[in-house]
Amino acid sequence: MKNPQTAQWQAMSRDHHLAPFSDYQQLSDVGPRIIVKGDGVYVWDSEGNKILDGMAGLWCAAIGYGRHELAEAASKQMKELPFYNTFFMTAHPPVLELAKVIAEIAPKGLNHVFFTGSGSEGNDTMLRLVRHYWATKGQPDKQAIIGRINGYHGSTVAGAALGGMAGMHAQGGTLPGIVHIPQPYWFGEGGDMSPDEFGIWAAEQLEAKILEVGVDKVAAFIAEPIQGAGGVIVPPKTYWPKVREILAKYDILFVADEVICGFGRTGEWFGSDYYGNSPDLMTIAKGLTSGYVPMGGLVVSDKVFEVISQAGDFNHGFTYSGHPVAAAVALENIRILREEKIIERVREETGPYLQERLATLADHPLVGEVRGVGMLGAIELVKDKASRKRYEGQGAGMICRGHCFNNGLVMRAVGDTMIIAPPLVISKAEIDELVSKARLCLDLTLEQLHSQA
Amino acid sequence: MKNPQTAQWQAMSRDHHLAPFSDYQQLSDVGPRIIVKGDGVYVWDSEGNKILDGMAGLWCAAIGYGRHELAEAASKQMKELPFYNTFFMTAHPPVLELAKVIAEIAPKGLNHVFFTGSGSEGNDTMLRLVRHYWATKGQPDKQAIIGRINGYHGSTVAGAALGGMAGMHAQGGTLPGIVHIPQPYWFGEGGDMSPDEFGIWAAEQLEAKILEVGVDKVAAFIAEPIQGAGGVIVPPKTYWPKVREILAKYDILFVADEVICGFGRTGEWFGSDYYGNSPDLMTIAKGLTSGYVPMGGLVVSDKVFEVISQAGDFNHGFTYSGHPVAAAVALENIRILREEKIIERVREETGPYLQERLATLADHPLVGEVRGVGMLGAIELVKDKASRKRYEGQGAGMICRGHCFNNGLVMRAVGDTMIIAPPLVISKAEIDELVSKARLCLDLTLEQLHSQA
Repeated sequence: MKNPQTAQWQAMSRDHHLAPFSDYQQLSDVGPRIIVKGDGVYVWDSEGNKILDGMAGLWCAAIGYGRHELAEAASKQMKELPFYNTFFMTAHPPVLELAKVIAEIAPKGLNHVFFTGSGSEGNDTMLRLVRHYWATKGQPDKQAIIGRINGYHGSTVAGAALGGMAGMHAQGGTLPGIVHIPQPYWFGEGGDMSPDEFGIWAAEQLEAKILEVGVDKVAAFIAEPIQGAGGVIVPPKTYWPKVREILAKYDILFVADEVICGFGRTGEWFGSDYYGNSPDLMTIAKGLTSGYVPMGGLVVSDKVFEVISQAGDFNHGFTYSGHPVAAAVALENIRILREEKIIERVREETGPYLQERLATLADHPLVGEVRGVGMLGAIELVKDKASRKRYEGQGAGMICRGHCFNNGLVMRAVGDTMIIAPPLVISKAEIDELVSKARLCLDLTLEQLHSQA
Repeated sequence: MKNPQTAQWQAMSRDHHLAPFSDYQQLSDVGPRIIVKGDGVYVWDSEGNKILDGMAGLWCAAIGYGRHELAEAASKQMKELPFYNTFFMTAHPPVLELAKVIAEIAPKGLNHVFFTGSGSEGNDTMLRLVRHYWATKGQPDKQAIIGRINGYHGSTVAGAALGGMAGMHAQGGTLPGIVHIPQPYWFGEGGDMSPDEFGIWAAEQLEAKILEVGVDKVAAFIAEPIQGAGGVIVPPKTYWPKVREILAKYDILFVADEVICGFGRTGEWFGSDYYGNSPDLMTIAKGLTSGYVPMGGLVVSDKVFEVISQAGDFNHGFTYSGHPVAAAVALENIRILREEKIIERVREETGPYLQERLATLADHPLVGEVRGVGMLGAIELVKDKASRKRYEGQGAGMICRGHCFNNGLVMRAVGDTMIIAPPLVISKAEIDELVSKARLCLDLTLEQLHSQA
């Protein structure tokens, strides 16, 4: 280590910090990499390494790092009114102005916003609001919510239960009345079906589950337009039209978890816009503030609002619901996304360019599939392209993630699927750099896998 | 209305904002009060009214409003590194330095911090960590958590379930395996017992519940040192010693929800310090950042850490766990609390003065009891002092809250209990103002109750 502070920070980590989704013994043994600075699409660690952040922090930094306008907006609001609650018939300008702006950019009919501090809290809010909605409509038995295996909806108890991550379910992340259907992950689970056939099959699992649980018991279906943490699962093109058809047939609310897809990642404001879906409720976070300040929310349709606004008190809310500093930062973030036409550029120029360049990796011997939409991408690592067979038990994904970090690129590994979600502002030259670094790391990974074999 | 913007903001509220714990029809009919500015212990609304904020936002603004040092800390960090995650073996300086500082100020043996975005998420983390702890120790049946009726632990599904608020339980806020015991609320529920007798009785309910559920089934007991949202319930002095005795007898984790009591409100760093309690886990939020940026966490003892650090991955965490801007603001907030000796002043000077001045309200015909500790206070509104009989069905608390707001004072009503928790920096002159405004509003409330009768 060149920087003596690195060891000091690592000691603080070992002695005092419980990091998310970590093995504390392992983290203590290895010591975390310390990220100290960000600018544009790059971050720097405490040893002076410059790293292209292919994950935008964690699907967050839509407008990139180092946008001083957001720091100014935060500072100005903090000096004026750093906090006030929105309980007890009070409010403040930033939360109201932000609610109005979100209604402007959200899909048609979604005009009401319940703010939270995170996407997890947004999904908790959804669960409680949906059950309140059906109870108010005289159907208190409509309590069940259908999620998807390998979906991700946050890490509160309810968020983990709505999601379909077995490791989270096993550690206290379950709730009664939450059921799951298979995911539309053709590469991993499509077997002999074509993608189109598999998309229909996966959608039909929703209908089967509705009928199994009982229409009069099912409150809602929750899904990410494109699964993020599950491995950037882009559904076959037959999937969403068939799901829409099934949802129209039964009286069930449609919840889009837009925490990752929202705010431009697909080249549209929301993933629901990209697919032409019309959700009744929509969870948001991450891109809402580009992650500069924690904030999330639940966007609610007129249809749902009409019912709950006649139902007396909704006994739910968070101290930091609609936090004024977070709201001021979100307003400035959305202003930048709009005025600099960042999402249009993703749709028309940089998104297609990223997909085109990523696709060139498909010829690599380690790569079974490359897929993506807009500023989302996935690379499947396989031992055999034709059969999609993996390097079982060799941790190909983790090996690749390590090479990436050591060669100045952040890619995330989900099992043996490498995923990316760079800041929306990434340039074509930076995309070239990302893809050429990715190829280098695929080479290094393949070499290591073979030397291990 | 003097300010035409007020109506515009109220229209935005009606059309787009779903406020916490609200009746949306009522909120739309009345229109929210718009808070636009804060300085010291005061806030201003959009009509130019100056209001002494007797609730510190919502138990948040410990160091008061308008501390530009926190805006500078936020802005500086946001320009340097506005966000990076702490997953995947990475971290950043602010989160590690904050974890170290919290270990310094926390009660002995509490040295490890899992950061979250709120107190709710802190309690969700607690639930999942506690069950993980017992499973790791080979006692997976220890799943039940004992909370208290009228306790408050946040508004996620798990938070609402841990808390004891019936209105939240009724709207989706329940979980299997969470049970509740009576609260140590002598004024409301002590009947003919003396406070000391009632404190023992209330503590004994914990032992009765442990035996009812089964020692081998109970994972933890969660409690606020002093219940906040429940109505600033200061337990009789016999309560905590007896609870400690019971917890020592059985192998059950003790969780202190310090979201309200923490960071100086009692005149000690934590409510657990004030009572001499030694929790195994401690939830924090609010005062941690003085509410300037959302942040919460769970402080974990060495005893619990020893077990979970040997248990492989803890499959839990939030995108905004340890957010760098929130951490930088928390560090600056704690620096100010320490260097300006704000908590010492509450303990030795302003806390006792507030309690002494509040106590003078006990002679008011509407007041059945005044109680408090440090910068926490409660005033019980009654029809008859001797019998503690209430003005049934007349909404005395809401009437009083309205008079307060209209006379430049924020007090919160919990049923017919008026509660206060002003910024810790309140001066003696401001305490005088608070108490004289409170007396005026008690007069006005009494007058209105009699004219309604």
